[in-house]
Parts: sequence; structure tokens; C-alpha cells
Amino acid sequence: MTASDPDIPMILRGAFASHALSTDPAELDAHSVDKGPLEHWQVHRPRAVVFPESTQDVQKLVRLSAEHGFALITRGAGTSVSGGANTTEGSVVLNLARMNRILAMRPEDEVAVVEPGVINADLNAAAAEHGLMYAPDPASYRISTIGGNVATNAGGLRCAKYGVTRDSVLALDVVLADGTLIHTGQATFKGVAGYDLTSLFVGSEGTLGIVVGVTVRLRHLSEHTETIAAFFEELTTAAQGVLEIGKARVQPAITELLDHNTMLALDEAQGSDLAGRGNTLLLIQTDGHGAAIEAEIIREVLRGLGALVSDPGSTESERLIELRRHARGDGVVTEVRVGEDVAVPRSKLVDYIRAIEGLAQEHQVQLKVVAHAGDGNLHPTFSVPSAELSPGTAPETTANDDAASAARPEGTSVTVDPAADDPAASAMLRLNAALDGSVRLALEMGGTISGEHGIGTYKLRWLDWEQSEEVIAVQRRIKDVFDPEHRLNPGRAIL
Amino acid sequence: MTASDPDIPMILRGAFASHALSTDPAELDAHSVDKGPLEHWQVHRPRAVVFPESTQDVQKLVRLSAEHGFALITRGAGTSVSGGANTTEGSVVLNLARMNRILAMRPEDEVAVVEPGVINADLNAAAAEHGLMYAPDPASYRISTIGGNVATNAGGLRCAKYGVTRDSVLALDVVLADGTLIHTGQATFKGVAGYDLTSLFVGSEGTLGIVVGVTVRLRHLSEHTETIAAFFEELTTAAQGVLEIGKARVQPAITELLDHNTMLALDEAQGSDLAGRGNTLLLIQTDGHGAAIEAEIIREVLRGLGALVSDPGSTESERLIELRRHARGDGVVTEVRVGEDVAVPRSKLVDYIRAIEGLAQEHQVQLKVVAHAGDGNLHPTFSVPSAELSPGTAPETTANDDAASAARPEGTSVTVDPAADDPAASAMLRLNAALDGSVRLALEMGGTISGEHGIGTYKLRWLDWEQSEEVIAVQRRIKDVFDPEHRLNPGRAIL
Repeated sequence: MTASDPDIPMILRGAFASHALSTDPAELDAHSVDKGPLEHWQVHRPRAVVFPESTQDVQKLVRLSAEHGFALITRGAGTSVSGGANTTEGSVVLNLARMNRILAMRPEDEVAVVEPGVINADLNAAAAEHGLMYAPDPASYRISTIGGNVATNAGGLRCAKYGVTRDSVLALDVVLADGTLIHTGQATFKGVAGYDLTSLFVGSEGTLGIVVGVTVRLRHLSEHTETIAAFFEELTTAAQGVLEIGKARVQPAITELLDHNTMLALDEAQGSDLAGRGNTLLLIQTDGHGAAIEAEIIREVLRGLGALVSDPGSTESERLIELRRHARGDGVVTEVRVGEDVAVPRSKLVDYIRAIEGLAQEHQVQLKVVAHAGDGNLHPTFSVPSAELSPGTAPETTANDDAASAARPEGTSVTVDPAADDPAASAMLRLNAALDGSVRLALEMGGTISGEHGIGTYKLRWLDWEQSEEVIAVQRRIKDVFDPEHRLNPGRAIL
Repeated sequence: MTASDPDIPMILRGAFASHALSTDPAELDAHSVDKGPLEHWQVHRPRAVVFPESTQDVQKLVRLSAEHGFALITRGAGTSVSGGANTTEGSVVLNLARMNRILAMRPEDEVAVVEPGVINADLNAAAAEHGLMYAPDPASYRISTIGGNVATNAGGLRCAKYGVTRDSVLALDVVLADGTLIHTGQATFKGVAGYDLTSLFVGSEGTLGIVVGVTVRLRHLSEHTETIAAFFEELTTAAQGVLEIGKARVQPAITELLDHNTMLALDEAQGSDLAGRGNTLLLIQTDGHGAAIEAEIIREVLRGLGALVSDPGSTESERLIELRRHARGDGVVTEVRVGEDVAVPRSKLVDYIRAIEGLAQEHQVQLKVVAHAGDGNLHPTFSVPSAELSPGTAPETTANDDAASAARPEGTSVTVDPAADDPAASAMLRLNAALDGSVRLALEMGGTISGEHGIGTYKLRWLDWEQSEEVIAVQRRIKDVFDPEHRLNPGRAIL
């Protein structure tokens, strides 16, 4: 220990009560990574984990970070699938999970104020008591925090109708890199005083400041929903169905598209019989007082395209939506997979899916596709059977919005041996070639490399495929305004 | 003319065709102010007005501005009611009105790409051909431009349901202060790659860059609307009605509240009989496939509160909504008035209106209130009869969302003589005291100084009532990232 290398754990022990701090190796390892893929990443054990219980605790920690020059990796539940919460060398983890109070619920204003550690589902449960909901619904909503949702500008199933996280965040309390607390935005639905710092913080993945309070807009929780399952012989017709629903001027709350391989996987895992009824499945939910009228319009439109459409009140449709809502939706564990999160203009859905089917064939990998078809956000999953990867060398690679996780001890770097005669390495190379190609194709079709998962550490390598040098430069200058020493979640979100 | 004071008009004549440039004094004066109040403002005649027809023209002008150090005041139709387009000394006006092409209309993606000079209503007309609409609908929508709407993050009547301008802007093309062109955002409804520069530009009033292209999200144009007029004896009950509609989980497209003085003014101007039927009027419109169901729920809720409620298909209600939509809604010209644009949490509507009624009494001024009650955005108008102000000294003071305008020659500074024995000055002092008090009250109730009109030059004096020193400092540093020499719309939007 030298003067230039202060004993950070000791300093933190002097500043925080023992229950607010951990240096237990197992705890440190559990905090070293999130649920993103670990390729292209060197795992580092953090120096300590601090669990603040107040804004003052956060400010104290940030000031210590400024004084002693250590990086802070801020996280909530660690459900990022993009490596947004992975720790860097010598960093300290700031885990906001204990700041989990709902500070205000104002049903008449349709507004709530929460601490960042509140679980999305808990906020929704509290809002539901007043007939309200917090609309953004990432698949992780039962385990992810509002702070994490804000950091990644999380999406979900209901976004085409109700918007993404940014559209539900009115104001923020943020601790800046020097420990200053600021309040941005306003508690009203409208407000145009000054620059929109609130939107700048939303989606910035904790790189500009530490969100310690979130004022959210709530919306009416519908008493009426109608769910429709529609089976199509052709993917093309299903995608046409999505557009025809739009032409009928209906905005469903949910429009999910599942391809045939996803249907087969569901059948295998759930004992259902989806794949026998068609090659593509649309799952649609309408809500609000017009739900029944809208559902009838949709059923008529889709039957007109030749689809096999569920009857009103179908319990199977409801069950399928729930399955899709909670996870990737298949439960298959016998593969090594890499998943993606691109978005394309929704008229390009068919072209895009056809193109990545071609990629899968070219690179000899399996492909399953689910898509939030209403907003053109796709989650293709490329995979090879686990058997192709010899045990021990097989990296667990998940980039989907499920909850699988594994803590890895320090120094466990997951790298791919490019030796062509190693079948496992070859499989990973094929997977990644398909993945890279799928991202490139999304951009070529006018899309984006990430619809809702965020860049984190994992997608940084694609970011300059989407962003120009000039945009990258502007982002760096903004980062420097807020965090000139790069102590807040360094090495992610921007290049 | 010295070396340090180059002949800017001559330089511009060398760079732009004569039809793209004006130094005609009448044109310069017409471009020196917008539709905001001119108190607290020294009018300056700009050096020239340039009318670019392309992004390249804009870049050329910006580079000349960098080279020769003159400020650029960028504007569209000049309909700001906050002085957002007022010129500063020695500045050149960049009028984007001729960049008015709809570059792409992609109905299947529910997306359009437009130049900044496109009139809001023209975009809506083009979208309507495909059953779509551009949702943000400021009262100026028939004359204001999308670029201006983006600059101010314009609101309107439909915001509680469909969001403000920011919620409909997906991507921007922006010329930076050095002439560089960047593209921000994405053409898809979802996208989380990097910082949200798009939202940062929206509402920044042209102070960070010059928007030359806007990718907007369109929404379904409803084939069904139902309009309801409900008269209440008590303001309190009307405001309660707004909250009860929320409790019935109905989100109207429009919820406007008019107080008794507004009803009286309408009766006088229109020959109607509103004031005889109640003291407060709610005008509500539902849309979408559930419009009739929702309207029936609303009528039942409001009748339950004792309101006099219009029957289905009421043509008077439709007419009243149109009147409210197009202007302040009364047509009265025999007053000198100052209007405001605060927003408060909507549960505070009654408290707020009661409090400003008290202010009006205290300062012996008249008060009329209209409010976008669904989102708590109020437009109180304080006035004194024109007769109180002796002809010649009466400043024309309009801060409402109507289209009244007056070009003023250089040097015409509108100042208020505080001499207490001058009745005109006394009237203006009373008006402004009421106005200041109304802004202060909005903040005390958890609101904001501007719901949708922007800060411009006129509201700068209130901005530090809302924003902390730290927020002001952050905004300045962001301004410096984009425009270190303060050449783009200096002296507005931020302190």
C-alpha cells in the first residue's frame, strides 16, 4: 500500500457503517458483472460494495471517490444484459438497491416519486391500488429497479402505445460527480424551462450522475384488455397484419411477433401445439375502454389476411402473452446463444427477418426471432446446441432479457480461441459472425444497434457503426461537463 | 467601417444570391421581434436576414458567422410569445421558412421527415391523407413551423394524451456552431444508443445548434371524436370533474377549462350564451375507437357532479373547441393584457386559480383563465381596460398564444415609467405585479414557470426562481460545449 494507492476499503469502513459496506469476496464477485455476455470483457473484482440508504450516503461516497480518485460503478439489481454494470479495475460498486422507498404517490396528479432502488413491479403494485400503472415494462420488471430502467431508458412490450422510460420520467434528483445534488425537470406533464437535463440523464447509463430520486408519470391501468393470438402460414403475411392494424388506426398496447423456431421451442418446453397451427404467431393485446371494439377490428383484419385467429376471451392467448412478458418465452437451456436487440423501421420487419435467416444459414447457426413488432424492436437469438461446445470451454453467453445470471470470480476472462480446429471456438466465431452481421443489417435498413437494452460495455464495439465521429465527439464533451475525471461508470454507454 | 467591424451585409451579399438575402429596413424590422411582450427588451434592427434554401446554405452562413464573429438569430414563423426570436445587437437573422419541404412520408412506419420550415398544419394535412396526424398542436399550428415547435418543445391541447413535441421527435439533423452537420437519434420508435442529444436540442430554443431536419413520429388520426361541454356552478366542482374523469380511467384527447370571465368575454365577442349557464366551463374531447364509450362515461361522471352537460353530437361543443384551438378564444381587443403559461400539478388547479383571483383583486386588475386542465397548464391573462392607458404610451403587451403581431422600428424600447402619478405606468406596474405573483405562486405549488411557451428572452427574469445555481451552471457548461462563442441565439433560454 503506497500513498498513491490508498486503502480504499479501509477508508470506506471509516465512513460507512458495517452493514452498509461489504468487502466479502463472494459479495464482490457477485457485484463484478451483470447479466450481459462476458466476451470482450475482462472481469475485475471491485474493491468494495457500498449500499447507501440515503442521498447523503451517496453524496458522501461520491465525495470520497473524488478525493481518492476511485471509480464508482453504480447499479441496481444488475439485470443489464449489455454489461452496463460490469466493474472496472479498482472500482467501488454503489448498489442502490436499499434506496427502495416510494416517497410519494399522488394519484390525482398521476405522479409518483420514488427512490432508484424501487423494483418496477413494486411501483406498479402500489400504483394499481389507485387504478394507475407505471407504463414501461421491460421483461425484467419483476426484478429490475426504476433506477436501472432510467439508466438504460428501458423499453418493454407496451412502448408503441405508452412510450419508453424517458416518456414516463418527469423529473430527477441527481448527485453529480463532485457530490452536488441537483433537481432536473418538473412535477408537471409539461415544462419547458431550460435544457432537458432529465432526458439527458435518462439512458446515460450512470455515466453523467447518480440518480437518487425519480418523479414518474403514471397512466391509467386499464380495466379492459383483450388478447388475440393469430397464426399465419407466412411471416410476410404476419408482418403485413401489423401494418394493416395500423391502417385500421388501431394502436394495440402489445404487438409481439414470434417466428416458427420460437413456436417450436415453446411447444417443446410447454407441451403446447403452436407450431402445428402456423409458421408465425402474432400476440396482440388491446386495452382501454375501446379494447373490445379494437380487438374486433384486429380479428377481422387478420382473418381477412387468412390468419387463424383466436376467439374473444381466449385463455391461451392470455397465457402466451404472460409467457412472453416474463422472459424470452421458451425456457430452453440446451443451447449456447447470443441475442440481440436491434430496431428497424417496422415496414422493414420482413426484409430484416429474411435477411438474418440468410445469415443464420450462412454461418450454420440456429435462429429464433421474437419482436416487439409494433415498434420494430427485434430480439433475434442465434444459437448452437450446447453439445457443440465441449464442457469446460463453453462460455455461458446470454444477452436476452431473461434473468439467468452467474457471478464469476476475479480474473475469469471469457475469450474465444480463434483456432479453427477447436469446435467450441469455431461455434462461437460463427455465432458472433451472425450477430455482427445482424447488427450491420439493422443499420443498413435505417435501424439502430439497440432498441432498449442499452450499449453498456458489450455493444461499444458496434457504436461507431451507428454514430458519426462528430456525434461521438459531442458525447465525450458532454461526459466531460459532468464527469471530467471519468469516475462515474467509466467505459460504457459512449465511445 | 473598421477591420474590427466588417461590413457583414456586404460579406453576405458575396455569399448568397440576392433572393436569399434582405437588408431592406422594413424586412429587418419585421424580423427584429416576434410575438412576445417587449417589456424588458431593447429592440435591435438586425444587420441582414438570410433565407437559406438548403442545409448547405445554413452551413455556409454558420461558417461566415464563425469567421466574422456575428451572432445568428434563427427563427421560423416568428410566432414565439416569449421573445425567443428577438434579435440582439449586430446579429443576422437566419429565417428557415423557405426550407419547407416534407422530405419523406412513410405511413407504414408512421414516420415523416421534414425540413424545419414546414408549417405544423401542412404536415398534418399531408399526414391526414394516410390516416395519420402529427400530434403536437400549439394554438399557432396554422402558422408556426415544425422547427419553431422543436425549438420551444411546443405543447398544445392534445398533450396529456399524446405528449409534447419532444415525444414526437425521433431524430434531428443539426448544424453545429462550427458548421458541422450531425444526425441525432434514430428513425425507430425505440433507440438507446448513446446520449439523447435529440431531446437536448428539442426545447433548447436554437441555442445549441440549428435544426435543419426533423424525423417525427406520426400517430393515428382518429375517425371518431366526441366533444362535451359541461357547465358548472363552481370552479371547484369543475376541477373535481377533471380528477373524477381520471379516476374513471379515461384519458381525453382534450380537456380545457374556461373560467367565468373567459365565458363572459366569449359571449360578448361571439353573441353566445355561455355565462348564463354556469360559472366554469369544461370542454372535453375523446377520440379513438372508444371515443363514444369514453364520452358516455365522462357525461355520467360530470352529471353526477351536478354539471349541465351537452348531449351527444352537440355542435356547439365542437364550435367551442375550435374557437379555443385557434386562439386565446375570446377576440377581445379593448384591453392591455399580460398572459402567462405556468403549469401546476393538476390537483392544485383550484388552489391556483383561487390564489391568482386573489392576486387580481389585490392589484386591481382583471383576470381571465383558460387552462389545459388535463395537464395542469394554465394561461391566466391579467388585463386593464385600454382606456386606463393614455393613447401613445400604451405598450401593446401580448403574451398569449394568438397571432397578433407588430413589427417595431429599431430603438423602440418599451419601458415602464414607474411614476405613480402616471395612470398608464401605474396600470402596467399593477399588471406586472400580478403576473410576477402568479408565477411565484405556480412555483410554490410545485409547478413550473413555463408549460409550453418557452423561456425566450421574456421569461429569463423568472428562470432562477425555478432553477438552482447548480442547474444554471450545468446548462452554461452545456451551452459552451456546443457554442462556446455564444453566436447561436444568444441571450435566451438559459441564464
